[in-house]
Amino acid sequence: MEPKPDYFTPIAMTTINTHPTIDELKDQIKKLNSKAGQMKMDLHDIAEGLPTDLDKLPEISARTYNIYCELRDLKQQLKILETNP
Amino acid sequence: MEPKPDYFTPIAMTTINTHPTIDELKDQIKKLNSKAGQMKMDLHDIAEGLPTDLDKLPEISARTYNIYCELRDLKQQLKILETNP
Repeated sequence: MEPKPDYFTPIAMTTINTHPTIDELKDQIKKLNSKAGQMKMDLHDIAEGLPTDLDKLPEISARTYNIYCELRDLKQQLKILETNP
Repeated sequence: MEPKPDYFTPIAMTTINTHPTIDELKDQIKKLNSKAGQMKMDLHDIAEGLPTDLDKLPEISARTYNIYCELRDLKQQLKILETNP
């Protein structure tokens, strides 16, 4: 049996660490990028297979949206840190 | 310039017509199917192109979900009507 994807474990604790270093940020972005890529593929597959798995759509799309927003924020933070270290 | 897709016009007035005939239902399902196919492709394209158009994701996915739910309801109604005309 295929293992169920884990959509529930918090992805990054970034919001708690208010003063991450550049290296910490880069590490978080890398991890989040990988997770975001997976979510994107899942959403893509759901869209492709509709109406199969219709019931999963609201959650998967919300989580995909959130992860990309978080990624955008982190990249913005990194940019600021790199400009004004 | 490409025309903007119309996501705001109500798709079917099905919910108002509480006693549609089998033919009316079939017609509504046909129209909705076509619209649903378009939404599915839009969602698919957004998923594929992420993070481009990230801001459109919540609305497009919600509308895609709603349209497929409506389609499911209509098909269920049709089934009932066909079984007990």
